[in-house]
Amino acid sequence: MFELTATDESTKARRGRLKTAHGSIETPAFMPVGTQGSVKAVSPRELHELKAEIILGNTYHLFVRPGLDTIKHFGGLHSFMNWDGPILTDSGGYQIFSLAKLRKITEEGVAFQNHLDGTPTFISPEIAMEIQAVLGSDIAMVLDECPPWPCEYDYAARSLEMTLRWAERCKRISKTGSQMVFGIVQGGTFEELRRSGAQALAAMDFDGYAIGGVSVGEPEREMMQAVEWSEPHLPKDKPRYAMGLGTPPQLLELIARGVDMFDCVLPTRLARNGTAFTAAGTLNLKNAEFAMQKGPIEEGCSCPACVDFTRGYIRHLVKAEEILGLRLLTLHNLHFYLDLMKRARGAIEEGTFARLRAQFVAEYKTRGESLEQNTGGAPERFI
Amino acid sequence: MFELTATDESTKARRGRLKTAHGSIETPAFMPVGTQGSVKAVSPRELHELKAEIILGNTYHLFVRPGLDTIKHFGGLHSFMNWDGPILTDSGGYQIFSLAKLRKITEEGVAFQNHLDGTPTFISPEIAMEIQAVLGSDIAMVLDECPPWPCEYDYAARSLEMTLRWAERCKRISKTGSQMVFGIVQGGTFEELRRSGAQALAAMDFDGYAIGGVSVGEPEREMMQAVEWSEPHLPKDKPRYAMGLGTPPQLLELIARGVDMFDCVLPTRLARNGTAFTAAGTLNLKNAEFAMQKGPIEEGCSCPACVDFTRGYIRHLVKAEEILGLRLLTLHNLHFYLDLMKRARGAIEEGTFARLRAQFVAEYKTRGESLEQNTGGAPERFI
Repeated sequence: MFELTATDESTKARRGRLKTAHGSIETPAFMPVGTQGSVKAVSPRELHELKAEIILGNTYHLFVRPGLDTIKHFGGLHSFMNWDGPILTDSGGYQIFSLAKLRKITEEGVAFQNHLDGTPTFISPEIAMEIQAVLGSDIAMVLDECPPWPCEYDYAARSLEMTLRWAERCKRISKTGSQMVFGIVQGGTFEELRRSGAQALAAMDFDGYAIGGVSVGEPEREMMQAVEWSEPHLPKDKPRYAMGLGTPPQLLELIARGVDMFDCVLPTRLARNGTAFTAAGTLNLKNAEFAMQKGPIEEGCSCPACVDFTRGYIRHLVKAEEILGLRLLTLHNLHFYLDLMKRARGAIEEGTFARLRAQFVAEYKTRGESLEQNTGGAPERFI
Repeated sequence: MFELTATDESTKARRGRLKTAHGSIETPAFMPVGTQGSVKAVSPRELHELKAEIILGNTYHLFVRPGLDTIKHFGGLHSFMNWDGPILTDSGGYQIFSLAKLRKITEEGVAFQNHLDGTPTFISPEIAMEIQAVLGSDIAMVLDECPPWPCEYDYAARSLEMTLRWAERCKRISKTGSQMVFGIVQGGTFEELRRSGAQALAAMDFDGYAIGGVSVGEPEREMMQAVEWSEPHLPKDKPRYAMGLGTPPQLLELIARGVDMFDCVLPTRLARNGTAFTAAGTLNLKNAEFAMQKGPIEEGCSCPACVDFTRGYIRHLVKAEEILGLRLLTLHNLHFYLDLMKRARGAIEEGTFARLRAQFVAEYKTRGESLEQNTGGAPERFI
């Protein structure tokens, strides 16, 4: 189901293709986040026009609202939201540990009250897989415990042990034919735990492997280390997915470390805050400097916002709180992320990935985007 | 510039075509409202796909933000917002009288403080025309005083006299070639004033005639009377425009009374409140009854929301406050209004307008939409 079509010589970057029940995904791939059954502010038609090949759905959010009965009634998430491409669903673990209230974790599973109306709920590894079977995603994720950051070694070790037992239970129950299942490497900031976690999961033979617990507040160095410690122990012939990451330069750095798949709310969330991604870093379109600028957000960009609209007009829309403003910024930012993956794929094929990475990272000025990213688990609202 | 191509035998309904510098408008026509240089939640491309032929821009809002310097810098409103079809701009009068603060009306003009930051501003009939010349709209409106409702005869009479003198001043200064200028009939709820107002404006030979002061809170009967009293005194060979109206049945009733053009925030504003227009009346998609419904908002509707999405999914989007929900409802509602005009045009051509009107009005269940309409002058925000 996953084939590597090229590998970079000077880094661990990989060019691949993952076949799913709803079509193939060229990797490295970015997955726009459709938390509540909609990539915020974007229609499925626009996602196709942006050439998004796969999107992510959040099991926790969909389980809470509209609920499984509704999605089952409509024939699964693809049909419910009218998206005919591949979907990856997370297991809900991350949101249970960041959003839900009154959590109680036992070997059996997690009891909690949801953040919307406090309904008491229990989710076990088996239930998480059953929910994802109803959602009908192409890729399901195992249920994992997401320890807080920072986290003591003893807690991280015990948590990892349970997460591995949960992974086995998920693997055991999952027999839904075309739905792939990915394991999740945890282990906090400890090399030994990341290694043993990756090795134990690899032995369970999952369809792919995610690296988890790397977007919950730790510094970038620890994020990279978690990947560097896990990756060597993951099977080369399976896709690797860094959950919830990251800024554009971080994505290239993670690709260089052997990661194939990404999801991140930054492009959509920052768009709703008036922020645009460019090769030189982010622009805050609320700033007065843009009011009279007749050029596009980024010269040469082929996204619908840049082809048809000026910085000055988009700035006006943002200031006037017009929905079209955040729509245009969302399209631009998703295009930026998707296009960066396309450039990375091309560069890996042509043997120029190291140059792309060096040039991009040098040109891109980080302006604190990664800080805002750490609200990844919070329910997204209009702005 | 305006030609009548058919008239109804049993009513005053007219089928016409108005030529503007940016293309022809088939009448009866509905103009989506683009208050701040954007029809809320809709892109220019989507407006074209909906076959909107003309949109409205609000001079007051655009004057306050982004301001004339900006729009001039970008070459006018068409270029600023990337809409290449016809635009009608109001004069700002209605918003000055409904939104602005500390108004002081003199023969010369109106001094006020804008609602955003309180900047003291003065607008005269001449300045209103100069502003609209900068905006570069295809149709400009004269500056009028909009008296409150209810309004005593003496005040309405004095106000009408001044509005007529203002109309003459607007007519005198307007020599901008391709920009048409419409007069506005005022006169409150008084037959004599509506008649004399219409007659005086007709003598000034405007390119078209609006009926104003009919959306500021009066009952529907008085709305219809204002049109009935004005219309016989307006030139048959010029378009008539009922400002700020109305519900779908009201539009047919106004067409039957000889009106050719409409603008109204109801379809866009109610969409952002979760409400959809159908032939049977409005639906509040927040209601639980829609949660499991697999059909479209309206059977047989060809709008992008009905072709691709179910009531149940749109209801989920509305409940979850997803932007796609209000986008889809906005597209549906605008399609509904535009399609109603198309049906009216076809019926007038085929001599079946009276039947369309009777059937539509009988089938449509009014559910209080007209109440919400009376906030027409308030600044529109996300919801």
